Amino acid sequence: MRKSQQIYAGRILTLNIEEHELPNGRRVSCEIVRHPGAVGVVPLLEDGRIVLIRQYRAAMNGMVIEIPAGKLEEGEVPEECVAREIQEEIGYRVKSMRKLGLMHNAVGFSDACLHMFAAEITDPGEQSLEHDEYIEIMRLSLAEALDMVDKGEITDAKTQLALLFYARRQIEPTKE
Amino acid sequence: MRKSQQIYAGRILTLNIEEHELPNGRRVSCEIVRHPGAVGVVPLLEDGRIVLIRQYRAAMNGMVIEIPAGKLEEGEVPEECVAREIQEEIGYRVKSMRKLGLMHNAVGFSDACLHMFAAEITDPGEQSLEHDEYIEIMRLSLAEALDMVDKGEITDAKTQLALLFYARRQIEPTKE
Repeated sequence: MRKSQQIYAGRILTLNIEEHELPNGRRVSCEIVRHPGAVGVVPLLEDGRIVLIRQYRAAMNGMVIEIPAGKLEEGEVPEECVAREIQEEIGYRVKSMRKLGLMHNAVGFSDACLHMFAAEITDPGEQSLEHDEYIEIMRLSLAEALDMVDKGEITDAKTQLALLFYARRQIEPTKE
Repeated sequence: MRKSQQIYAGRILTLNIEEHELPNGRRVSCEIVRHPGAVGVVPLLEDGRIVLIRQYRAAMNGMVIEIPAGKLEEGEVPEECVAREIQEEIGYRVKSMRKLGLMHNAVGFSDACLHMFAAEITDPGEQSLEHDEYIEIMRLSLAEALDMVDKGEITDAKTQLALLFYARRQIEPTKE
């Protein structure tokens, strides 16, 4: 990046107009949404089912089916964020977790990334939602969740990807 | 949405501060990036290999491995966009295509969506890149591409997802 003009700095994102130099030396001006990064978690119950959430998303003007997820707070490592979001959004405690992968949401206009995990969870309790969150909890089998991906009932990229990554590891344990 | 204040309207995105009402009646203010939508394509050569691209992405400050993709133009249907992007970005002609699915990139802050396709391509020719594009072409097998996903060498969400959707359809033809 050669130059950057900040258009807006808000609660969850920053919008810049940035000047970049391509590998061929040409200079281009780009609209870039800078974002602190996030985590998304496939939460695994002791009976083998998965917890998904139905959440009101303003960007979608309605409810969206998702894995629990959240933005990294300043100085927070992804694993801390996983434990915090599982407690806040679905009211469980994380017993153990493993990484599924990393995704970049929309490289055409943003550096937003999301660390994907699977986590064994226990001790169901109360959610502690933020004032701008509205979340319902669903419990279903991996097969049911994958069926919703195949039927286009789940269209959230992090949820599709984390479920497919998790299923892929179940089928191909030698890849662990 | 109850109210919207436009912060910025640019070439590829619009940033609004919007007031929304949650299902419980609470009103919240949200930073939303509105985007026209896009397509991404797994391009299939006659010898069975896949074409991927390495592209300079300002948001990532470097080269990113991706499927060919692009933003929908005003009034353009996804299938037209697929044929156009395949011609522009890799210089091939689309013989046939089928849908793989739809993803929403980042429902936490944007309505951006991407229609995923697989397309048989033919007649290699010249790319016709836009002034702000820098793209190198890679040809590899599906197994090689999936290996790059598993190793974390491909982190672009649309590319990870379209490759996994395509592979899933190959393995489970009864789901077609």
